[in-house]
Amino acid sequence: MIDQTHIRALKDILGDKGIVQEPGAMVAYQTGARYDEGLAGLVLRPATTEEVSAAVAYCVRHGLSIVPQSGNTGLVSGSTPDATGGQVVLSLDRMNRRFDLDLDNRSLHVDAGFRLSEVNQRLESHGLFFPIDLGADPRLGGMLSTNTGGSRFLKYGDVRRNTLGIKVVLADEEGTVLDLASDLRKNNTGIDWKQVFIGTSGAFGIITECVLNLEALPKQVATAYLVPASGAHVMPLLRAMEQKLGAYLSAFEGMSRNAVTAALDHVPSLRNPFQGGQVPDYVILCEISRTWEPREGEQGLDAVLETVLAEIWESEAAPLADAFVGPAHEMWALRHALSEGVKHSGKLIAFDLSFRRGDIMAFCDSMKRDMPAAFPEVTICDFGHIGDGGVHFNLVVPKDGTAATDKAFEKRLRDWVFDIAVRDFAGSFSAEHAIGRKNQSYYDLYTGETIKQLAAGLKAITSPGPLGAVRFG
Amino acid sequence: MIDQTHIRALKDILGDKGIVQEPGAMVAYQTGARYDEGLAGLVLRPATTEEVSAAVAYCVRHGLSIVPQSGNTGLVSGSTPDATGGQVVLSLDRMNRRFDLDLDNRSLHVDAGFRLSEVNQRLESHGLFFPIDLGADPRLGGMLSTNTGGSRFLKYGDVRRNTLGIKVVLADEEGTVLDLASDLRKNNTGIDWKQVFIGTSGAFGIITECVLNLEALPKQVATAYLVPASGAHVMPLLRAMEQKLGAYLSAFEGMSRNAVTAALDHVPSLRNPFQGGQVPDYVILCEISRTWEPREGEQGLDAVLETVLAEIWESEAAPLADAFVGPAHEMWALRHALSEGVKHSGKLIAFDLSFRRGDIMAFCDSMKRDMPAAFPEVTICDFGHIGDGGVHFNLVVPKDGTAATDKAFEKRLRDWVFDIAVRDFAGSFSAEHAIGRKNQSYYDLYTGETIKQLAAGLKAITSPGPLGAVRFG
Repeated sequence: MIDQTHIRALKDILGDKGIVQEPGAMVAYQTGARYDEGLAGLVLRPATTEEVSAAVAYCVRHGLSIVPQSGNTGLVSGSTPDATGGQVVLSLDRMNRRFDLDLDNRSLHVDAGFRLSEVNQRLESHGLFFPIDLGADPRLGGMLSTNTGGSRFLKYGDVRRNTLGIKVVLADEEGTVLDLASDLRKNNTGIDWKQVFIGTSGAFGIITECVLNLEALPKQVATAYLVPASGAHVMPLLRAMEQKLGAYLSAFEGMSRNAVTAALDHVPSLRNPFQGGQVPDYVILCEISRTWEPREGEQGLDAVLETVLAEIWESEAAPLADAFVGPAHEMWALRHALSEGVKHSGKLIAFDLSFRRGDIMAFCDSMKRDMPAAFPEVTICDFGHIGDGGVHFNLVVPKDGTAATDKAFEKRLRDWVFDIAVRDFAGSFSAEHAIGRKNQSYYDLYTGETIKQLAAGLKAITSPGPLGAVRFG
Repeated sequence: MIDQTHIRALKDILGDKGIVQEPGAMVAYQTGARYDEGLAGLVLRPATTEEVSAAVAYCVRHGLSIVPQSGNTGLVSGSTPDATGGQVVLSLDRMNRRFDLDLDNRSLHVDAGFRLSEVNQRLESHGLFFPIDLGADPRLGGMLSTNTGGSRFLKYGDVRRNTLGIKVVLADEEGTVLDLASDLRKNNTGIDWKQVFIGTSGAFGIITECVLNLEALPKQVATAYLVPASGAHVMPLLRAMEQKLGAYLSAFEGMSRNAVTAALDHVPSLRNPFQGGQVPDYVILCEISRTWEPREGEQGLDAVLETVLAEIWESEAAPLADAFVGPAHEMWALRHALSEGVKHSGKLIAFDLSFRRGDIMAFCDSMKRDMPAAFPEVTICDFGHIGDGGVHFNLVVPKDGTAATDKAFEKRLRDWVFDIAVRDFAGSFSAEHAIGRKNQSYYDLYTGETIKQLAAGLKAITSPGPLGAVRFG
């Protein structure tokens, strides 16, 4: 456990500001954004890579288990301590000094403790942004450790694609600093080691700095709701939009009737945009965007979208039942309210799945078909990022029923859904939330022995010390 | 060495077609595209992943050193055997059966022995392509092992970005097959192991299959030559084009006067496109493209490009000395002839460098300033992918001078250039050709001890057997 000797030694390394030890002050660091509650033995708040290195070296030499924590907005218990009170939380919340913008290179070398919103606020006047679009507002270190995707993955890709370099501290007795913070876009001079630390929940090292690719801010945006003639028409629609709109296309999000209805019911600020108030079975929110101001002689984006929808409407495949262009702000407001709406309509049991794009609707159909018999209490309120195969497969059970409090019920339900998603559809049980304590058992179940052995080997050569909330080996 | 017992055993595994042992027939496999000449002890030509696995297992158990070979078009001696005659070449040239196109997913699961041109020919009728644009025509396995970039990196990224999954055979006593051939676009359920095998020259495993991201084929293209007012105006020009053209921009290539002149002098089919035949100091070939057919009411791409160039022309920064839109075919013909032209103008000593984008012109300027004193025999004929920081820094010495044959001269020159590129400018000594025997010594020189130790550790846990032409540890 973490005795006074350790606390004094770590205070010597990090200074008074670098240590939180009062139970009340530690609450924020041991409680997750939505689900977690752990018990921290001590919280460290280093301000520089060198301090992270010194603190980590001390902890490893004394066998103290470290859980790195960034914005603590994750949904899988990857950044909070366990219930023992024996773990040290290492927070990045003071790592926010370095902010080196390189306009020519369109890149930013930045400390990992900045929040996404802070980064984008500072970039706005330069017409640039870090193009990961999320509901939450994480710090960068956590974004890299989970390799988040978000709503505009289709156009900009994930965090991995937008990371040029990182600096990382290994959990060994020296607190080795690996300086992989290259700002080169093209460089093939060995193993691309940064890839090992991206998306692995801080188990192999603590990312303290990063070099990010930036993109030009969109200056024009147009959005439309598309109602496919049936689930089978969603993919032909996506393919037509991709071919006809190319890199204009910046979002292609799916919303089920149940999710939309939940949002309209529970979020009073929303307006029902559908004719006669009739919410369709399935709606696509499609966004196109471009980086320049309107030009004389150039069609506006709304007109471009209208033209393309008319082309699709008239095509033989005719996959559209309805479609209308509307104000981006309003159309996104409904999309962003889905999560909130679903939460209010009962007890939420959420899944972050992904599939080959062509399998998304087939999976959802199979669930709609088989769920009523297997779990009659469950309402399916799915929505997701159809353009990249991601599905926020959200299930709701009545708040006052037994299913809402029965842990065994939730486990049975999770096992059943994951098994169909992973085994029958070769999907992913964690599309963009990564692995935390919450889905450790599914990692253990679905990961082959060879991969586990390789992970254990990788752990031994990078960070042999006790690091992170997840066990990959 | 490779005795008859080994040859018989491997013939039992691979069949008659799977073995080449006559010296004459082995020549093609021991000679590289441009530079190499090695001596193969035996050539294996497995046709399936299972055959690769069985052959590799046999070789590892018997201590036979394997060099994987794909299209053998590389420029750094990464796919040819050494001079001892003791190495086995494992060619992928019969690995071309599986070709599973998933139109909904915009992905292709394919054997690694297909050539890039074959893949794109088969995809053309579907309006799709694998968006890596290269001068050579490699096979896929080699493209993944070198993580090639090419001329349209700016828009589509490198091979790494466009690879969803791989199947790989490890050089251990079992010839373990790692099936990482996922076709998911969003999946964060552990270490992304494929990254370890991409860009590492086959040292950690042999890639036998891959799942590739495909992109919609451009249906409209426009190109222009831009003459920046000075070297210092190249970056403001690139930034303006990126902001004003966004994802339309598909190439931004730089060509020095010496490179252009060499091409015009030595490639008779070219027309001199510059006013009065005066080749400017530096010319940018800029390309924009989009995936749809021309639409009524929509400006053509030539007009878009004209408009944007006019805007830049009139802007205060005024970085343009000249600019003209012209036929894409002709403009690219000159760009593609640079390499050929430079080769004919003397003995070529080629560098594949990359820099922060803002440092490209500064590096080239420093070379122009200091080269005459340091190496008076040398003419600088650089060109490159300015949009991603890549520079094909090609140097030419007179064919009949002593410098052309003096190995010590070439080494002195290489050492000098690399040292300035890597140490003074924090650039890369291999932007897109990866590591082979040819630049092994520079890997050894510029790679830190910690990284080498990690690489040795990674080698031990993945492919402990003798594999590949490169030593990363």
